[in-house]
Amino acid sequence: MTHTVMSSATREIVLGFDRPFVVIGERINPTGRALLSAEMAAGDYHRVRADAVAQVEAGAAMLDVNAGIPMADEPGILAEAVRQVQAVVDVPLSIDSSIVAALEAGLEAYDGKPLVNSVTGEEERLESVLPLVARYGAAVVAITNDESGISQDPDVRFDVARTIVRRAADHGILASDIVVDPLVMPIAAVSAAGRDVMALVGRLRRELGVNTTCGASNISFGLPNRGGINAAFLAMAIGAGLTSAITNPLEPDILRTVLAGDVLTGNDANCAAWIRRHRAANGDGDGAASGRRRSNRRRARSGG
Amino acid sequence: MTHTVMSSATREIVLGFDRPFVVIGERINPTGRALLSAEMAAGDYHRVRADAVAQVEAGAAMLDVNAGIPMADEPGILAEAVRQVQAVVDVPLSIDSSIVAALEAGLEAYDGKPLVNSVTGEEERLESVLPLVARYGAAVVAITNDESGISQDPDVRFDVARTIVRRAADHGILASDIVVDPLVMPIAAVSAAGRDVMALVGRLRRELGVNTTCGASNISFGLPNRGGINAAFLAMAIGAGLTSAITNPLEPDILRTVLAGDVLTGNDANCAAWIRRHRAANGDGDGAASGRRRSNRRRARSGG
Repeated sequence: MTHTVMSSATREIVLGFDRPFVVIGERINPTGRALLSAEMAAGDYHRVRADAVAQVEAGAAMLDVNAGIPMADEPGILAEAVRQVQAVVDVPLSIDSSIVAALEAGLEAYDGKPLVNSVTGEEERLESVLPLVARYGAAVVAITNDESGISQDPDVRFDVARTIVRRAADHGILASDIVVDPLVMPIAAVSAAGRDVMALVGRLRRELGVNTTCGASNISFGLPNRGGINAAFLAMAIGAGLTSAITNPLEPDILRTVLAGDVLTGNDANCAAWIRRHRAANGDGDGAASGRRRSNRRRARSGG
Repeated sequence: MTHTVMSSATREIVLGFDRPFVVIGERINPTGRALLSAEMAAGDYHRVRADAVAQVEAGAAMLDVNAGIPMADEPGILAEAVRQVQAVVDVPLSIDSSIVAALEAGLEAYDGKPLVNSVTGEEERLESVLPLVARYGAAVVAITNDESGISQDPDVRFDVARTIVRRAADHGILASDIVVDPLVMPIAAVSAAGRDVMALVGRLRRELGVNTTCGASNISFGLPNRGGINAAFLAMAIGAGLTSAITNPLEPDILRTVLAGDVLTGNDANCAAWIRRHRAANGDGDGAASGRRRSNRRRARSGG
């Protein structure tokens, strides 16, 4: 049974087929958020901290931290964002950048074992990111595209995942420290996108023994009522073996689906988290931020 | 590709892995509905007719008709209920009884090719129901229990399904006319119930080539917010290959999940039904009865 262990200074989170599904909160990302972007560039992290606390209270077991701001000092900002977030929440982080120097700055600032987001099958990326992951003893998200782009053929995406796992092994990185993103295409453009992800998640689990993650909301791009598609997709993908997703825990449908998913995969022992959440929410349970990982709630870190 | 074809006098519905998921409306059932029960026993079918129309308008592609009223003339009532329902809607019906004489009366009254609900692996049931199914050229729901009851071991339930398929073949009934119910246990009592159904649906599809159905809401028995569990379960099961369910189309979460499921399995070409429903519902789409099978809507049957 593959377990991917990540940690902050005080907490561990384990991805695994026999573990509750892990929501990695996606909100700390300046892409498309002009105000957040301007604030981060100006050294104001109050919204970053608030987004961190809100997502953890809503049920995120990890948080993604991205500082992709054009023309800004991304390494410096990402490192500071990592410190600011670790000062207010104790969940492990995913350090997210397309710039290797920013990943390194984030890793240097981080206290614990983080997830690096991400490596791809591109030669230059393999050669620059994998040594960093190995040096810092991190886990890493492996995105299944390479120099030729994103293949619409899921078998090609599987082959890219296998290549990354092999190349990582050359750096001493275990398969259990690789979390593969099978790449979710918009179903409005690629009608097989749903079936492909289900099949890929199953193969990745059976043949490579790796945990998986994805940006789940991409599936509904261009459609009305995206929340309805996203929730059904997440349930299907959890059923097929997906073990985490980078998504928005503040959407009630997402959290409800994840909690129901844990019940249905048998990873919520005695349905305890489900029952607790709905008791806390007075029998309705979709509006209230409560329950799942109560111990995630904001704690003053003694050393923070 | 297995296709189970059922029909009314004027309409066909096809179950298949490459077809939209079929909701079989469960509401016409006096069990636990004292008023409906008393009315049906007294020969008053106005609520039966209203339930038929409402379920079809909500998106049911078929309707289950049950007349299980203690101490009443079940064959006579079931036959009349079938006639009454066929007079107001044109979807195919599932004729549902544990009494063989009632199944026969319902079959005799029915116009088209119905689904018989159900045969089990019990010897007496195999020997009484299968000849009826063969004689009337119907399709049949095969429930995976036998004399020893319902096994908690999904492999045993699979074996019962295989036995039923073989015994049906002796009567000239094709596997494509058998719709297997893998039996959904309450997850609060059997923590593997969700995983077992996913695995069973996959095996039934791969190894026996049969379509499947289930009473989906049993999964959430005893839990709070049953709708949340039911919706996630249905999405997972559709992802695993379930092709129909006997459920309540009047619950908005159910219909939304089924429509999203069709999008995600690639069985809603160009996402047309999803987009139409959400356009009709003014961008929200969960309250309005519209869209999916607009052509299902009430039609005066010329011969009715």
